Amino acid sequence: MVTHRIALIPGDGIGREVTPAARQVLDVVGKRHGVGFAYDEFDWSCRRYAELGAMMPEDGLDRIRHHDAIFLGAVGDPSVPDHVSLWGLLIPIRRGFRQYVNLRPVKVFAGVESPVRAARAGEVDLVVVRENVEGEYSEIGGRLGHDLAVQEAVFTRAGTSRVAAFAFRLAAARRGRLTSATKSNGIVHTMPFWDEIVAETATDHPGVTWDAEHIDALCAKVVLDPARFDVVVASNLFGDILSDLAAAVAGSIGIAPAANLNPEGEFPSMFEPVHGSAPDIAGRGIANPLGAIGTAAMLLDHLGHAEAAAEVEQAIGDVLAHTRVRTPDLGGTATTETFTKAVLEALR
Amino acid sequence: MVTHRIALIPGDGIGREVTPAARQVLDVVGKRHGVGFAYDEFDWSCRRYAELGAMMPEDGLDRIRHHDAIFLGAVGDPSVPDHVSLWGLLIPIRRGFRQYVNLRPVKVFAGVESPVRAARAGEVDLVVVRENVEGEYSEIGGRLGHDLAVQEAVFTRAGTSRVAAFAFRLAAARRGRLTSATKSNGIVHTMPFWDEIVAETATDHPGVTWDAEHIDALCAKVVLDPARFDVVVASNLFGDILSDLAAAVAGSIGIAPAANLNPEGEFPSMFEPVHGSAPDIAGRGIANPLGAIGTAAMLLDHLGHAEAAAEVEQAIGDVLAHTRVRTPDLGGTATTETFTKAVLEALR
Ligand SMILES: CC(C)[C@H](C(=O)O)[C@@H](O)C(=O)O
Ligand SMILES: CC(C)[C@H](C(=O)O)[C@@H](O)C(=O)O
Repeated sequence: MVTHRIALIPGDGIGREVTPAARQVLDVVGKRHGVGFAYDEFDWSCRRYAELGAMMPEDGLDRIRHHDAIFLGAVGDPSVPDHVSLWGLLIPIRRGFRQYVNLRPVKVFAGVESPVRAARAGEVDLVVVRENVEGEYSEIGGRLGHDLAVQEAVFTRAGTSRVAAFAFRLAAARRGRLTSATKSNGIVHTMPFWDEIVAETATDHPGVTWDAEHIDALCAKVVLDPARFDVVVASNLFGDILSDLAAAVAGSIGIAPAANLNPEGEFPSMFEPVHGSAPDIAGRGIANPLGAIGTAAMLLDHLGHAEAAAEVEQAIGDVLAHTRVRTPDLGGTATTETFTKAVLEALR
Repeated sequence: MVTHRIALIPGDGIGREVTPAARQVLDVVGKRHGVGFAYDEFDWSCRRYAELGAMMPEDGLDRIRHHDAIFLGAVGDPSVPDHVSLWGLLIPIRRGFRQYVNLRPVKVFAGVESPVRAARAGEVDLVVVRENVEGEYSEIGGRLGHDLAVQEAVFTRAGTSRVAAFAFRLAAARRGRLTSATKSNGIVHTMPFWDEIVAETATDHPGVTWDAEHIDALCAKVVLDPARFDVVVASNLFGDILSDLAAAVAGSIGIAPAANLNPEGEFPSMFEPVHGSAPDIAGRGIANPLGAIGTAAMLLDHLGHAEAAAEVEQAIGDVLAHTRVRTPDLGGTATTETFTKAVLEALR
């Protein structure tokens, strides 16, 4: 039996509530497939920050460098400025482990009503491939006294072409359609650079049909006609916006899974649902665990267990299609625990 | 009788088709209110660029500096790179005439089906106040050879506080609610600066309830619950994204009006619908004129004719609520001309 070592970082708020759900699912489906998981739990969080003044220890990255994967619940708490919690934990891991792809699949499931009329179950199935380590999220910049703040967006050829290549390969393995998010009419230096590199990358993938859309029009189209999209490749900021928007179109941000991938496998990848720590509902046991469970499926897939991953996805789909168990974000009254149990039963 | 001098720039594509609609409406409603309009037409466009190598003459701004207002149809053509057409015409006017507010009201009209289930007619009535002259749209930046592109976002205290103050005043005159778009968790220099200035400005407007939302979550909420918003203040890029998204939520970008305002009246303001030149449908006479007509209403309001403006808005609402006349973007078969006639009739 193969055993994978997983670094578990439940984090803050509902992150602590949905992480056990993911873990239970991994254990159950792993058992059936002869795959074991050994977890090391790390209490890196805003709570730790309050006590010790840092989100994680100085050698944090070294402590998880040799794990097979990282599972992170969610990070953030109103008592700590967002940029502290994120730049003190999430972003150092993404960057330190060269997780340059943030993969965010979005599906409309049968049994979930989309807020958007055109989004019918089974028809919407897109993946946002978000550049995850450079671009608009940059520490370069600052203030000139009281009166001026500047921030530099930085795009490298290497960084742009590797994420573009990943997206084209993914599109080739799916329905062969790719859309690149741009804003080269307004952002006149970095976005035309992005466009050129995407166009160059496209020549290596003649089987993929692709186009570029300005982010303003693209957001509108995600609402008007989400079924038209297959793979959407976007910069760090645009990918963040598009994946939240698309998750809302799918019915709830609570069901959206995500993976921060280091595709070359030089470092562990990190699996982290799209939703945040949701301080408004934290502690009540009503967080939707499906985002975390779908994220666990992505972890399985990444570690080479495609069949097990498919079973987890199937179980999520079955619970939504064939039961009425729902957490409040989906209009129901179920708890995290009940919803998780329903998935575990569907798995059996 | 007062006569206003209007600089008319039909521009490209459907801009040339919807500008006459706006003009007819201005003339008809003006007549009733004892207001005359004298138009000077300027063929500044991609066509001009093809012939003369520039979107407008070098002294373009001087030629329209003393007009009471500028009406612009739309600019852009596939034969000319977007950044050339925009930075050669639209953006110099916005910046040269200190039109630091881009005002983009969004309503769901009775008779128009929103693509979003939660968007019911009469309930959605929001205004995006977009910063229009600085921020992420900057010419500062460039490339380092083949491998690197950088772009500097620049936010000044003066630029941020004047647009924030405008937005708070507007909220105070409306339903007293303001949302500020931010991304201070990811964009760590300029967005916290934006947040601080908005918070400071808020202290001058104790009657306005306000909050800040990250742009990713905000886009999701515009889809999930558009009725919750009153005034949304946003940077240049975020305002661009939000206003297109909100216009889609309202049923069609073809009905969205907009104004580029110099609130102090030092320079003429520019009135320009949200939609672009739409080369895909240009020349067929089927463009939706309502965006341009609503934009004409904003022009009337800006020049002090609030009653005339309200009549135009009423006429738009009446045609949508009480007739089936619709251009193809709204699911009908009417032409620009027929739709315009219907509005003119409703006005009488
Ligand atoms: C064409 C483009 C530069 C422009 C903008 O982003 O300002 C347009 O999208 C708009 O909203 O007026
Ligand atoms: C919290 C924030 C910095 C983060 C991001 O924008 O990357 C989050 O929104 C996400 O999408 O993972």
